[in-house]
Amino acid sequence: MQLYSFFNSSTSYRVRIALALKGLAVDYHGVNIRIGEHRADDYVQGINPSASVPALVDGDFRLGQSLAIIDYLDQLQPAPRLIPQEPQARARVLELSHAIACDMHPVNNLRVLKYLQDVLGASAAQKSAWYAHWIAEGFAAVERLLEQHGHGPWCFGEAPTLADVCLVPQVANALRMGCELSAYRRVMAVYVHADAHPAFIAAQPTRQTDFQA
Amino acid sequence: MQLYSFFNSSTSYRVRIALALKGLAVDYHGVNIRIGEHRADDYVQGINPSASVPALVDGDFRLGQSLAIIDYLDQLQPAPRLIPQEPQARARVLELSHAIACDMHPVNNLRVLKYLQDVLGASAAQKSAWYAHWIAEGFAAVERLLEQHGHGPWCFGEAPTLADVCLVPQVANALRMGCELSAYRRVMAVYVHADAHPAFIAAQPTRQTDFQA
Repeated sequence: MQLYSFFNSSTSYRVRIALALKGLAVDYHGVNIRIGEHRADDYVQGINPSASVPALVDGDFRLGQSLAIIDYLDQLQPAPRLIPQEPQARARVLELSHAIACDMHPVNNLRVLKYLQDVLGASAAQKSAWYAHWIAEGFAAVERLLEQHGHGPWCFGEAPTLADVCLVPQVANALRMGCELSAYRRVMAVYVHADAHPAFIAAQPTRQTDFQA
Repeated sequence: MQLYSFFNSSTSYRVRIALALKGLAVDYHGVNIRIGEHRADDYVQGINPSASVPALVDGDFRLGQSLAIIDYLDQLQPAPRLIPQEPQARARVLELSHAIACDMHPVNNLRVLKYLQDVLGASAAQKSAWYAHWIAEGFAAVERLLEQHGHGPWCFGEAPTLADVCLVPQVANALRMGCELSAYRRVMAVYVHADAHPAFIAAQPTRQTDFQA
């Protein structure tokens, strides 16, 4: 299988964690979204019509969207399963995953911050405040979800799930942007636990072949 | 089951379509997000820690996040199935659904537009341009996905899936905001087909008990 990824993309990071947890090897292709490689004709027509990273190519099957890719990997190689099969356990994992993947990540990704700056003329301080606002609102919700339904050391018990796979890159991103996260005690406890796991370490941005300091 | 919904919320609209397709009756509770009812303590602590609509309550099981709810309904009442079981068909449906649910909807929802206006001082014209920008970028991607992988009259063949359940509210929202969508020929063909289906009609904003003109 081929993975198209950008080292610093949170959605790519999710797929890298899932692959590592399942012990699946891929050929890694760096796609530099900072210089628009994800919008190049060859990439959009031949790899990913969504014009985004990540994308997975499995034989002649090409797939975009990180959560669709991870669900596909879970079908392909169920051990270890990242999305439980029991309906309520499954629903809990998907709920927390979407609280991050839909409510947090999209409003703070590169293209949105770029629009704020280039089109609306937002200052660096205004961009930082925007970023911090959605992080605070989002992690407050995730913290409440963990308080009501979580049970450590992972988001939901003794093994990693899609929820942890979404949580770790989002926390890493917020820390990199200088956000203060200590108020989200449960979120940070999961992060610290997960980030020491070999699969989560292997997926870190700094360990990818396209990493740039 | 109880559904907490706002008539004009696209994510609530998705769940209403799924319920109607499956013929599942719910007690409908309007939550007026325009006046912040989704942030009230009782709602956040007792119904949905995500502080958002929709939420489903099934006995003592409370669940937020529209895609998690629809996946749960698909487990509970598989006929008709909205997320296929065959891995590649399933992946296609999730890919298109997430292209809308992650890449389009979150950047244009009420709280984001409100922040642009209240905090960044964006004008009505700047807000409209922002909205139209992400609609154009998003539907261009969805149109390419349908071109490469879709086959009508629904997004993926002869029956509705989660992809259609996500597409229709997003198109309806964009039309309401005055966007020109005729360039997205395949998107609009699916929309016109789906929007005439009884389940999609029953789920329309104007037909909900909390509708306000």
